Amino acid sequence: MPGKITIFDSTLRDGAQAEGISFSVTDKIKIAQALDGLGVDYIEAGNPGSNPKDLEFFRYFSGNGKALNHAKLIAFGSTRRKGIEAKDDSNVNALLESGAGAVCIFGKSWDFHVTDILHATLDENLEMIRDTVAYLKSQGKEVMFDAEHFFDGYKNNAEYAFESLRAAQDGGASALVLCDTNGGCFPNEIYEIVKKVVAEFVVPIGIHTHNDCEMAVANSIMAVEAGATQVQGTFTGFGERCGNANLSAIIPGLQLKRGYDCIFLNEMQNLTRTARFISEVANTSLNKRAAYVGQTAFAHKGGMHIDAVTKNPQSFEHINPEKVGNTRRNLMSEVSGRSTLLKKVQQVRPDLYRDSEEMAKIMEKLKEQEHKGYQFEGAESSFALKIRRVLGDYIPLFELCYFKIISEDMASASQNINATAVLKIYVDDESVVENDEAVEVIAAEEGNGPVNALDKALRKALEGFYHDRLKNVKLTDYKVRVLDSNDATESHVRVLIESTDGVRKWSTVGVSPNVVEASWEALMDSIKFKLIMDKDERYAVFAY
Amino acid sequence: MPGKITIFDSTLRDGAQAEGISFSVTDKIKIAQALDGLGVDYIEAGNPGSNPKDLEFFRYFSGNGKALNHAKLIAFGSTRRKGIEAKDDSNVNALLESGAGAVCIFGKSWDFHVTDILHATLDENLEMIRDTVAYLKSQGKEVMFDAEHFFDGYKNNAEYAFESLRAAQDGGASALVLCDTNGGCFPNEIYEIVKKVVAEFVVPIGIHTHNDCEMAVANSIMAVEAGATQVQGTFTGFGERCGNANLSAIIPGLQLKRGYDCIFLNEMQNLTRTARFISEVANTSLNKRAAYVGQTAFAHKGGMHIDAVTKNPQSFEHINPEKVGNTRRNLMSEVSGRSTLLKKVQQVRPDLYRDSEEMAKIMEKLKEQEHKGYQFEGAESSFALKIRRVLGDYIPLFELCYFKIISEDMASASQNINATAVLKIYVDDESVVENDEAVEVIAAEEGNGPVNALDKALRKALEGFYHDRLKNVKLTDYKVRVLDSNDATESHVRVLIESTDGVRKWSTVGVSPNVVEASWEALMDSIKFKLIMDKDERYAVFAY
Repeated sequence: MPGKITIFDSTLRDGAQAEGISFSVTDKIKIAQALDGLGVDYIEAGNPGSNPKDLEFFRYFSGNGKALNHAKLIAFGSTRRKGIEAKDDSNVNALLESGAGAVCIFGKSWDFHVTDILHATLDENLEMIRDTVAYLKSQGKEVMFDAEHFFDGYKNNAEYAFESLRAAQDGGASALVLCDTNGGCFPNEIYEIVKKVVAEFVVPIGIHTHNDCEMAVANSIMAVEAGATQVQGTFTGFGERCGNANLSAIIPGLQLKRGYDCIFLNEMQNLTRTARFISEVANTSLNKRAAYVGQTAFAHKGGMHIDAVTKNPQSFEHINPEKVGNTRRNLMSEVSGRSTLLKKVQQVRPDLYRDSEEMAKIMEKLKEQEHKGYQFEGAESSFALKIRRVLGDYIPLFELCYFKIISEDMASASQNINATAVLKIYVDDESVVENDEAVEVIAAEEGNGPVNALDKALRKALEGFYHDRLKNVKLTDYKVRVLDSNDATESHVRVLIESTDGVRKWSTVGVSPNVVEASWEALMDSIKFKLIMDKDERYAVFAY
Repeated sequence: MPGKITIFDSTLRDGAQAEGISFSVTDKIKIAQALDGLGVDYIEAGNPGSNPKDLEFFRYFSGNGKALNHAKLIAFGSTRRKGIEAKDDSNVNALLESGAGAVCIFGKSWDFHVTDILHATLDENLEMIRDTVAYLKSQGKEVMFDAEHFFDGYKNNAEYAFESLRAAQDGGASALVLCDTNGGCFPNEIYEIVKKVVAEFVVPIGIHTHNDCEMAVANSIMAVEAGATQVQGTFTGFGERCGNANLSAIIPGLQLKRGYDCIFLNEMQNLTRTARFISEVANTSLNKRAAYVGQTAFAHKGGMHIDAVTKNPQSFEHINPEKVGNTRRNLMSEVSGRSTLLKKVQQVRPDLYRDSEEMAKIMEKLKEQEHKGYQFEGAESSFALKIRRVLGDYIPLFELCYFKIISEDMASASQNINATAVLKIYVDDESVVENDEAVEVIAAEEGNGPVNALDKALRKALEGFYHDRLKNVKLTDYKVRVLDSNDATESHVRVLIESTDGVRKWSTVGVSPNVVEASWEALMDSIKFKLIMDKDERYAVFAY
């Protein structure tokens, strides 16, 4: 019967081994609190012996009342060095100094590593494991043992791998964690070997896998099916090389599909939010395709799939996205047939039908623009504006005559103001302009970069006409993607801007060889879309 | 005994269902040729019934002698519609018109889909499968059958799922492919169910999985262990929602680790190159952490790991990266301890040792810069310049007095020239300047964007001094990353530039709230690094 699976998160320790990851102490505190909120049982937060910054983190939580609600913090370190007593090993003592109530010790279980990397005898290594666990235990700590390279060790010398576990058990370890450190094992191997270990030991068995064969999630789940009761991983899968087992995929798999108890039941709906938050704090982009929590995890593009999901979501979704706090998205694109697109277009132009000439023109425009590097999935508001042009509904509202920007180097600038933009626009929106005559406006602004200055100048120019409607509009995201990086600075870039008026959000896109021009296009679309949506509420179907 | 596993790539069909993917006909041709070169057996290239662009692709290969060397092209479509004969179904006929020698037909094997989505009777569906396969076969095609939702169907109504396979077998299908269409299955389920199917049918069995539980690779491999002999997937794993089974992880897993015959033996070393090429053509970034082929798949950051891999790569690598054409990388960062860094620094300053004051200063600088948003992993050349400053070895070579850039909108510009940069630098490199006196140079250039204009102006200013050394230097990559996208256009950006002189490549980095300033910093570092490396060959350790 499915029971409790202890979740052991190592985002802050093994995750920090990933290329591009560098946590500040504040980052670590934020992530620990988020994991604690979900109901993760253990949070491995660093190696105080090798990184002094980690000590600062542990001190924040120890002794000043800022405890976590549920999770226990873990300090991580290795078995004592060869030839000295555990009590005299500075790295072992750093674990005690951390103040963490629980520690995780890694030791060698692959004979080759003992002899060729550690340069110790097989017996010495067993003593190092036993001693270190026993010493830390005698100092009042809960001690887990990470059997490094356990599976490779087992394949090479099964008896010795088991001996390393016995040494940790004899020392008083509260869990024996089997590590596929190099990430090279296959699911059926993991299953068979874990089964043998579970049959042999009374101490709870854990699993710690790496993703070098893209099978870390499956390997963790197979270990649980074989009797492991602790899973170690990192929350969005980052870690050295190909990363660690991804807890944001393992937890819902075990809990929603197999009925194991992993995290707080009512927190499952915060899974997606937490994964995105952690990625943000770690300054990485969460893989869009990530299982359960990714932006496209429940995004449907094929026309037939969209039709079927509309009839019954179960037809192309393995779980209801709401269970993990994610959402269903229906994308537009050439392969989706016309039905998705038609539905949205029909909400603003109910007179159009599937085979009408206008729909063909819209599809044509879509293809032509995609060919130029536009991507309207995720920038539907820009597409809405293009539809209006095709349909002849386009009202320019305002049009650019020119912009000119002067940028200079930071050292010459004062107070980070290193760009000045001036622009001239014609406002010819009859709802704000008298006598039906276009009004010419010239405005200038300065900013901390050309795009920032341009954005401010445009708002200034429009202020006299649309003050109330634009006052709450602000940009919430700005992304630059280089489309064809072979030509270096002559490449095309795609700029994606997300805006909000406090009620809705919408995204717009611009493409150009010049990042300023692409940004301008997306900025202008953003403002125009807001003004059109205000005039015609039906356009909100292109916002979210 | 491991035998032949047929590899069926659907990058061009199921992969095209991914958000953000839109292939041109030329893209498809390029990818098909790359897959063919590797020795992939089948290339599913489109659904000619639903996308006319796909027809154009098939026509390129059919009948004009531009055949592939090894792979067979597959046209994909569904079983005939209910209530008409297969020969009268336009989608079925589009498969014939494609000219592809082999076709893959998908049909329903989950009773719920038949009744609730297709609105057909269970018997009608079986006839649709049998008829369609038989008709296409009668027209001389090799016909495979994709049993859509087979595993979900099996769990709901095993007998009916089997009947759908029997219908396809009766129709003359050459392979029965079991699809985990919703990607919700677990490895042990896949194993058990495939085993039952393999025991029951004489026709070869295939597997087609999706990654919604992050287990598509494991599920494919488990199916092979259970007797499946065909694996369907996409080359870098992209596809609808969370993507398809990633062939670039499955192929080396089966071939290198289990001895199956998947692709040409001597092409395995082109696996990484092919995965990167396909990502490039698809205009996606290959996941850095991708198993086997990712940029960090064999990157080591932890100090102890780097030490161990230096002793014996097997210690932290599950395979030799060369086998798949990837490379080992040792990264620098705070957790790597000092040994990696020290080694590189010692190559340029052999007098420094681990605990020297200078090393502490370098570590301090590294941390301080990382805190500001710099990332020297992958931009070691910029770091080399910073080390020189810390060590007092810094020779400015040239220094910026100011730059000023005027940009304007594209419409006002002529011939895509919409930015003009002017800069003033002081050149005080004694090897090129007479009388030890700094020479002031002012230069101006125009370009198709501010960064492009600035790059050209800097080169022009330096031409008189370093013509021979800079003439072959060019930028090969330019990446912009927005660091904290919450402040929108006021965010910091990190610019990474890759340069080459035809012999070596090196990467430099710049960080600023202003994309132009960040680009300038990286551009200047790129040129300075090249000049320093020319003076002192030892600095090549920071290039690659």
